[in-house]
Amino acid sequence: MTRYKLLIEYDGTSFCGWQRQRDRPSIQQTLEEAFEKLCQRPISVFGAGRTDAGVHALGQVAHVDLPKDYSPFVIQQALDFYLRPYPIAVIDVAVIDEKFHARFSATSRTYCYKILNRYVEPALNKNRVWHVPGRPLNVNKMQEAADLLIGHHDFSTFRAQECQASSPYKTLDTFQFTQDGPAIECLIKARSFLHHQVRNMVGTLKLVGQEKWSLDKFLSAFQAKDRRQGGPTASPQGLYLVEIGYAEKSFSDSVYS
Amino acid sequence: MTRYKLLIEYDGTSFCGWQRQRDRPSIQQTLEEAFEKLCQRPISVFGAGRTDAGVHALGQVAHVDLPKDYSPFVIQQALDFYLRPYPIAVIDVAVIDEKFHARFSATSRTYCYKILNRYVEPALNKNRVWHVPGRPLNVNKMQEAADLLIGHHDFSTFRAQECQASSPYKTLDTFQFTQDGPAIECLIKARSFLHHQVRNMVGTLKLVGQEKWSLDKFLSAFQAKDRRQGGPTASPQGLYLVEIGYAEKSFSDSVYS
Repeated sequence: MTRYKLLIEYDGTSFCGWQRQRDRPSIQQTLEEAFEKLCQRPISVFGAGRTDAGVHALGQVAHVDLPKDYSPFVIQQALDFYLRPYPIAVIDVAVIDEKFHARFSATSRTYCYKILNRYVEPALNKNRVWHVPGRPLNVNKMQEAADLLIGHHDFSTFRAQECQASSPYKTLDTFQFTQDGPAIECLIKARSFLHHQVRNMVGTLKLVGQEKWSLDKFLSAFQAKDRRQGGPTASPQGLYLVEIGYAEKSFSDSVYS
Repeated sequence: MTRYKLLIEYDGTSFCGWQRQRDRPSIQQTLEEAFEKLCQRPISVFGAGRTDAGVHALGQVAHVDLPKDYSPFVIQQALDFYLRPYPIAVIDVAVIDEKFHARFSATSRTYCYKILNRYVEPALNKNRVWHVPGRPLNVNKMQEAADLLIGHHDFSTFRAQECQASSPYKTLDTFQFTQDGPAIECLIKARSFLHHQVRNMVGTLKLVGQEKWSLDKFLSAFQAKDRRQGGPTASPQGLYLVEIGYAEKSFSDSVYS
């Protein structure tokens, strides 16, 4: 058996999310079926992050164990062929030590969240942004509130009920807004996140941007450590898994050619 | 009659381009049908630039004369409703002097061209970029060659056979590349362009980026003033009409709300 690390891009619109489910197609299942075609036997694909239905990825990472040695370039070409009907692309492949685990070896996760803040719905970026109509959001206020989240905290206010993590404590490293007219983006980085944490943080910060919530109100909701005190969950359509960090770089064996 | 200026965004993938054609749906026709529903009579929509099939717009401008006074907000709401099935959005509306003509009053046109330069096809940006597989393009060389095009020149080498302009002379103001890994973008600005000029320039610069063409070869092709000396036409999918400039700003009467 040889272990391979995969770098994966996808449009999450038509999938039930990363993880296999019985009734709707998932990214994981689509990849596993492509590997099964290549290897002629069932193959499990282990992802670094379980993105929700509608969430996109520019840099999801996964690992697979294959029953024989393929060159990364052959895997790349085969996957490119089998995935052609789907909005999923394996953009890099590398042989990796069998101690590597896409999920458990990860040292950071970076997400980008995109908001379109204007009256009309997006024509070009339908399903790729969270459409927030109404008056312009106060992005400076949103940044001030986001700054309060940086560091090691109990994030229960932004934790989904279904979250299976053993602790509500996480360390948030980055939460940075940028704006270009009606297009607002934020980059959010941590070692790991609670279930729905990013979308719940963004959905609550929107209330601050709309000036429905003061900074004080935001801070007391955060400090209440109670999901019922937080704002709504932002749309999955605006969320992109951008990068998974590992202690060691491993896409040196690049297949760009 | 009242004249209105419209700011329009669209995904050009499923259209035959801006201009009405008999056999396939165009952006212009779709907009005219929406206005006909609003006004209960045929309405002509005049665009600033005739984008080709597959070309997108973030900031196309058009004007219409409507038989009665509507507030820009009412037009916005009505168009938002009638255009909902289509990837077209009227993102701003303003009342404008009847001397204004979307095409003839324009003083500049800005396009963005997006290239994805990696082995595998795009998953997230299918139909939104020109996929250029193969070795990394030398973007510095492409920029050096593009710099030779700045200024007032005979652009016959990059002019489509079907071009109806009376002169092959144009003044190119900006041709600026930026790169983020495999994502290469360029911003191209001029008062006006010849038919297919942007795509023919980009397609020829690609040969320089691939180091199939030297700068000297590029320069002599340009100076030959002969389309047969130029490179191929770049894909329409990578092209975005970003902004039309006018002497006077006129979206002051903003409908963002």
